[in-house]
Amino acid sequence: MKVFQHVSDIGDLKVAMQEAFEIKEDRFKFQTLGKNKTVLLIFFNNSLRTRLSTQKAAMNLGMNVIVLDVNQGAWKLETERGVIMDGDKSEHLLEAIPVMGCYCDIIGVRSFARFENRQDDYEEKILNQFIKYSGRPVFFMESATVHPLQAFADLITIEEYWTKRHFNEDVNDKGDELSFIGKESGLLSSVKKPKVVLTWAPHPKALPQAVPNSFAEWMNAANVDFVVTHPEGYELDPQFVGNARVEYDQMKAFEDADFIYAKNWSCPGVTRPEDYGKVICKDMSWTVDAKHMAVTNNAFFMHCLPVRRNMIVSDDVIESPTSIVIPEAANREISAQVVLKRMLESL
Amino acid sequence: MKVFQHVSDIGDLKVAMQEAFEIKEDRFKFQTLGKNKTVLLIFFNNSLRTRLSTQKAAMNLGMNVIVLDVNQGAWKLETERGVIMDGDKSEHLLEAIPVMGCYCDIIGVRSFARFENRQDDYEEKILNQFIKYSGRPVFFMESATVHPLQAFADLITIEEYWTKRHFNEDVNDKGDELSFIGKESGLLSSVKKPKVVLTWAPHPKALPQAVPNSFAEWMNAANVDFVVTHPEGYELDPQFVGNARVEYDQMKAFEDADFIYAKNWSCPGVTRPEDYGKVICKDMSWTVDAKHMAVTNNAFFMHCLPVRRNMIVSDDVIESPTSIVIPEAANREISAQVVLKRMLESL
Amino acid sequence: MKVFQHVSDIGDLKVAMQEAFEIKEDRFKFQTLGKNKTVLLIFFNNSLRTRLSTQKAAMNLGMNVIVLDVNQGAWKLETERGVIMDGDKSEHLLEAIPVMGCYCDIIGVRSFARFENRQDDYEEKILNQFIKYSGRPVFFMESATVHPLQAFADLITIEEYWTKRHFNEDVNDKGDELSFIGKESGLLSSVKKPKVVLTWAPHPKALPQAVPNSFAEWMNAANVDFVVTHPEGYELDPQFVGNARVEYDQMKAFEDADFIYAKNWSCPGVTRPEDYGKVICKDMSWTVDAKHMAVTNNAFFMHCLPVRRNMIVSDDVIESPTSIVIPEAANREISAQVVLKRMLESL
Repeated sequence: MKVFQHVSDIGDLKVAMQEAFEIKEDRFKFQTLGKNKTVLLIFFNNSLRTRLSTQKAAMNLGMNVIVLDVNQGAWKLETERGVIMDGDKSEHLLEAIPVMGCYCDIIGVRSFARFENRQDDYEEKILNQFIKYSGRPVFFMESATVHPLQAFADLITIEEYWTKRHFNEDVNDKGDELSFIGKESGLLSSVKKPKVVLTWAPHPKALPQAVPNSFAEWMNAANVDFVVTHPEGYELDPQFVGNARVEYDQMKAFEDADFIYAKNWSCPGVTRPEDYGKVICKDMSWTVDAKHMAVTNNAFFMHCLPVRRNMIVSDDVIESPTSIVIPEAANREISAQVVLKRMLESL
Repeated sequence: MKVFQHVSDIGDLKVAMQEAFEIKEDRFKFQTLGKNKTVLLIFFNNSLRTRLSTQKAAMNLGMNVIVLDVNQGAWKLETERGVIMDGDKSEHLLEAIPVMGCYCDIIGVRSFARFENRQDDYEEKILNQFIKYSGRPVFFMESATVHPLQAFADLITIEEYWTKRHFNEDVNDKGDELSFIGKESGLLSSVKKPKVVLTWAPHPKALPQAVPNSFAEWMNAANVDFVVTHPEGYELDPQFVGNARVEYDQMKAFEDADFIYAKNWSCPGVTRPEDYGKVICKDMSWTVDAKHMAVTNNAFFMHCLPVRRNMIVSDDVIESPTSIVIPEAANREISAQVVLKRMLESL
Repeated sequence: MKVFQHVSDIGDLKVAMQEAFEIKEDRFKFQTLGKNKTVLLIFFNNSLRTRLSTQKAAMNLGMNVIVLDVNQGAWKLETERGVIMDGDKSEHLLEAIPVMGCYCDIIGVRSFARFENRQDDYEEKILNQFIKYSGRPVFFMESATVHPLQAFADLITIEEYWTKRHFNEDVNDKGDELSFIGKESGLLSSVKKPKVVLTWAPHPKALPQAVPNSFAEWMNAANVDFVVTHPEGYELDPQFVGNARVEYDQMKAFEDADFIYAKNWSCPGVTRPEDYGKVICKDMSWTVDAKHMAVTNNAFFMHCLPVRRNMIVSDDVIESPTSIVIPEAANREISAQVVLKRMLESL
């Protein structure tokens, strides 16, 4: 694997899931793979979960890790040719990025949406520069538009808890029967697909669309019944949400759901580009609370964290026995490790 | 060991000291213990000695280390239930702390006294949240009220130098005869206990009480003749200073001392809570100089560092042959390594 | 090797070059050397290439690495005796530096010229404090006046590309015939020495002289025909530039050159001390472009990076087939690894 950005990069989902659970059973099994290999983690933005889980995953694989924090404001790379660089940009991307590739084997980059220009964000200018010029495999540690390590961890979590609920067994005991999720697998078609609902919820600040974009993309690729619910104007970009069912009535969307995935995002600017990155709704009735959960099929509650309580979700829902936000976060180590393992194998 | 906060956490002091000297003799002896184990070091405050010595100790044990610097100002965790989190707190401790525990085996935390509220500081709110919610063993890398890695290193240093002076031998040559210090040991009762004096000294800024608190607690537990001296109003909290002798006349306290441990601290607010965290004395006659040292029993001079010269201690005293501040700092690696070893053994 | 500051510290250049190419052939060959050894990298200034390449080099050798970022503004060490430290300096160098040495085996330090006082910079006050008081081998990761890891990497690069051009072979295929460069070698005297030109080029800001100083020093020690060209007033310090030929006519200097090494530096203050650290020329005719390169012997183009395009060098020159700035940067890993290997061998 040379790039990890989209669900298609991971290949057959059933194989990926089996690999994930094999790693979860013994995190140190593939430790010789990473010997004398170095991953460079470049953070243009703050990170807690991604920073810790990716470092841990790399170390599980026996890799060396170099973490580089870059103040996005200070990272002023010239990108054009012909410019006389007498201003505040002290380096051209054509030198800066190949040089970073010199000192490592694999590169992970975090660079959030800047909300200055929709096209710049959705073209993934920064990440694409690393892909094009670093000479190394590049994985996305949340970019302007995607957060695939999160979505992969989410899928692992859904598979785990759906298996537990159905068979009262851990995933690793299921062996070949594993995976409701992989569409390719064709296995277990008799089992009911879980209904997975991605719901918008209110938040005081304008947040990127990376998490919902990737979650929609991955759910569309998985063997689940996927529904998105949000106020009008929050339509996700078609390249991610595809033909997923959109239901503007949140309570209706929640009916018989097996998994509720809550997340705030700012206006994606699909219907009104001028609203891109804005907060266009603060309706607190969208906060996921016990009343919402009551119409579900005793659904599991998920969120990528950090979460603002009583904005996104009520205290009682996030503290309930079906809240799986902590195991979901723990699976970030597993998704990162599958990705790094794949990249190591491709070196 | 699941928590390292108080001297009682380390158990029998004689055993702990023998372990310390065994490690000092061969730092890499227990390297298999730490294989595939990860320690997360969380710094809410600046650190030089603790950062370096704890990393080194963990690496000696073959551990992986992840360092996380958190700007205390930016770490605004909601701690209450029921609050609508629409302000500047973006995460609740009930999510943030368990997540950190997901990606490591052991957690160290540094979080200084904030001096806003004595009760908040003395209740150790932040560290106790980590103990309660992280699901991992937690050791204190200086908290609001204690600095046990320093006090343990101090005790190791006192044992080393007292053994050298008495027997003209290194501690490791003493074998079973080791340890004046462990009260439990009952050994060597014929040997005179060293007189150890903790003396307040002036400083331009308000400093926490963590170092003197822990030093008092550890000395009270050790087989030494312990005396505290400070201006009136600087009485340490009874939970740490216990029944130790307090002598307000500094010169009298110094008489026949074998170890002088100098340190500034701000008002602990024991007698006058309204003075908590204030500088209530700047009397420069408390600066430890040759005149003070002359009345001691050729005492060793100790300080946890960093030290302001000619405020805390004169140049000639800190540069004298009996100044052991550098070996004392070097023993920080040893105390951290004993603590990590104990925690690894308990996993 | 106890200090790596000057070209003389590395000893016989032919031996050093052979060691470099041996390491480049198999970076992990000397991995047992670094087992249980720790290098502390102290950065008082920003770093990209040095930070990454030195970490990578140390890990190649099996070492543990601790990185310490120190805000130079916050690093206020008292250096005098007798001062009452009641101001903004919280530690004396006589404590701070020996303590750092306690927790590592080797120390690397980056500390740029401050341009406040030429004498302070050229006396290398900070680095010399580490050499004198840390008790550890110290290597310079760019100091006020030198950048020897860069100059060593430059020399390796020149040797590589000169060998390729002459023999159409890689350096490692040359075996004992290796090294035009080492003056000591006396080998291959029949081969023409390469003409290497260090040229000043314009830049909007005042830059230190560390890179040109070291480059001049290393070229003077190597078996090359070395020429320096710059506007009047930019004369380098005699301790580095020695008797190298200085040619004020840039085009004349470039004639028949085999390597062009471009770099800006601010006024070294040799002829007019009051101009030290100032930008005294902005003449854009010094920018290296195709017209300049046309008079060379199809010269290779080199720069230490980061480089401002169309100030230092035109787009077409830096993108041309003879531009070797990226392999030059990659050799930073090799030069750092030779230095660390030598220091490990001397422990």
